[in-house]
Amino acid sequence: MENTLIPTALCPKVEHAFEILGKKWTGLILRHLLTKTCRFNEIQDAIPELSGRMLTERMKELEAEGIVARTVIPERPIKIQYSLTDKGRQLEPVIRSIEEWAELQD
Amino acid sequence: MENTLIPTALCPKVEHAFEILGKKWTGLILRHLLTKTCRFNEIQDAIPELSGRMLTERMKELEAEGIVARTVIPERPIKIQYSLTDKGRQLEPVIRSIEEWAELQD
Repeated sequence: MENTLIPTALCPKVEHAFEILGKKWTGLILRHLLTKTCRFNEIQDAIPELSGRMLTERMKELEAEGIVARTVIPERPIKIQYSLTDKGRQLEPVIRSIEEWAELQD
Repeated sequence: MENTLIPTALCPKVEHAFEILGKKWTGLILRHLLTKTCRFNEIQDAIPELSGRMLTERMKELEAEGIVARTVIPERPIKIQYSLTDKGRQLEPVIRSIEEWAELQD
């Protein structure tokens, strides 16, 4: 890997990116949202070991980071949907590369 | 992203990969090792806010994961070098994709 990297000391953005992605369950949540817009319990059903409290926390964080959008559908009863923003969609290559690496490991 | 993903419920390996990469400083440490084999203090110099204690902990974890190799050079004084294993080198696309994503963000 030629040294075209951003100088390590000057990349809080890169470190912040690792931090966001590294939080427990965030990777799997993003992976699921990459396949489709979801309601809260659809995400929870897809990741059985993930508690409702933790999912709520992760979704708030991802919303604050501008990675996930929360849409309220004013039906009766009200429906809430979660989808990736453009910033979130740009994570697809990252998610895919991590998956490919994970699959290589025995 | 067509649904060619591994079923979410069945991918502890993917979740484990996110966990490894998400630990604070791991991403930047791996990034630095991708550019060259390093001695302990070279890594520490490259990441000023990273304490010696934390770096020691992260290197032990990465060694246990088979991502980093620790080589003792029997000179006087003894030299210890850290380098990426094949498994570690396979992370290059992941590190690069995270960097590219981070650079896109304002």
